[in-house]
Amino acid sequence: MNFSIYLPPQAEGGDVKLPVIFYLSGLTCTEQNFITKSGFQRYAAEHGIIVVGPDTSPRGVKIPGDDESWDFGVSAGFYLDAEKAPWSNHYRMGSYLNKELYDLILKAFCNVVDPNRIGIMGHSMGGHGALVSTLRNPGLYKSVSAFAPICNPSACPWGVKAFTGYLGEDKNKWQDWDATELVKKYDGPPLTLLVDQGAADKFYIEKQLLPENLVEACRSVGVPVILNLREGYDHSYYYISTYIGEHMDFHAKILKA
Amino acid sequence: MNFSIYLPPQAEGGDVKLPVIFYLSGLTCTEQNFITKSGFQRYAAEHGIIVVGPDTSPRGVKIPGDDESWDFGVSAGFYLDAEKAPWSNHYRMGSYLNKELYDLILKAFCNVVDPNRIGIMGHSMGGHGALVSTLRNPGLYKSVSAFAPICNPSACPWGVKAFTGYLGEDKNKWQDWDATELVKKYDGPPLTLLVDQGAADKFYIEKQLLPENLVEACRSVGVPVILNLREGYDHSYYYISTYIGEHMDFHAKILKA
Repeated sequence: MNFSIYLPPQAEGGDVKLPVIFYLSGLTCTEQNFITKSGFQRYAAEHGIIVVGPDTSPRGVKIPGDDESWDFGVSAGFYLDAEKAPWSNHYRMGSYLNKELYDLILKAFCNVVDPNRIGIMGHSMGGHGALVSTLRNPGLYKSVSAFAPICNPSACPWGVKAFTGYLGEDKNKWQDWDATELVKKYDGPPLTLLVDQGAADKFYIEKQLLPENLVEACRSVGVPVILNLREGYDHSYYYISTYIGEHMDFHAKILKA
Repeated sequence: MNFSIYLPPQAEGGDVKLPVIFYLSGLTCTEQNFITKSGFQRYAAEHGIIVVGPDTSPRGVKIPGDDESWDFGVSAGFYLDAEKAPWSNHYRMGSYLNKELYDLILKAFCNVVDPNRIGIMGHSMGGHGALVSTLRNPGLYKSVSAFAPICNPSACPWGVKAFTGYLGEDKNKWQDWDATELVKKYDGPPLTLLVDQGAADKFYIEKQLLPENLVEACRSVGVPVILNLREGYDHSYYYISTYIGEHMDFHAKILKA
């Protein structure tokens, strides 16, 4: 598995421990899209934050059907642990991210990483991944934000396809990987969810993302949520590059408090 | 021919005329690289500057040998007018840029473009293009800057290959498209050349770029030149994205004076 890591100038010398943000990419992406297109580096350098970007699925496994569509299989791991064969052997991005890679970063970069100040963000499928990873593992991530996340996968075409394929037909299992369902049962440290959404995003308009469902669920249980609806913005990295600074500020405020 | 154009928020309404900067890309690029990777939009929006990005060569002409190497033919037009067959029919990027596209932008965007405030910048082969276009056409561009430009193509492997192919063996003709030679004969309005160079750029180390030759030529004739050597930076768009804000500031200072 490839991943990217950005070490800010403050990491040089290794005499201070810095916060880390994991960034999860969306469908069709690798660990490259964010580092090439978002311009996050300027803000991470200002704040002194390490940024780690994993890939979006296993690579090179070659399961029949894994490259037939762009929204399932390769580059579409949905940051969950598959339960249905043949995916269940390798498509375990939930464990990879929240255990294997998380532990690896803490160990391999132990001289510069502060293990008590870890945040997570993501885009689209990666926004879903950031929300779900945070809600399933209370306390593992101290701050969370998402650009145009898939907020309620059990109720949108992308999510139904992925969950049916990876988890099977039993919809009870789907709830364990759906932010809108998970937040209703959240019982961890206080948390504010920052959700960003372009109002001209065609996947928002086509109801793949459903941020309103997440907001309603949050309100029903009193979990603070901020929904920023951005007039005229689409689903692209141009949109992310416009607001990445605001998200870095949000995380820095929490992680450096 | 494709080109990109960025209109800042200040262009809305069309009641003010704004400066324009042309950005010329390097070898292997299209009009997409800069708009995807550099993050210039934030600075252009702050300054209220329109940014236009042409492609790097003709496309779809299909001349034998035009796709055999990455530094000659397709995506390697060198912003000159070829004189040698078969290239001389279509490989006329100098005229395309400084006449056809220049005029097109002034006409098609006449409601927002100030024709007296046009600047130009570029990267690598495009830095060469920016310098040469400015020096060959006194007054056409009021401000010029370049990232890691090919400063003395007559004296480096890339330039010798391209000039031999496009212009022929007669080296007298090469001088007309070589910034280091052109500046010695420059007789136009006062001009300051801003040249940026990463010190860890392998093409700089391999003497493809030769900024020192340009600086020496400028000093011999009293043309002001700024050479910023950036410790540790390479030839990539990560480097450009780091200093694009400084370059936009430089152009804005001149174009908005």
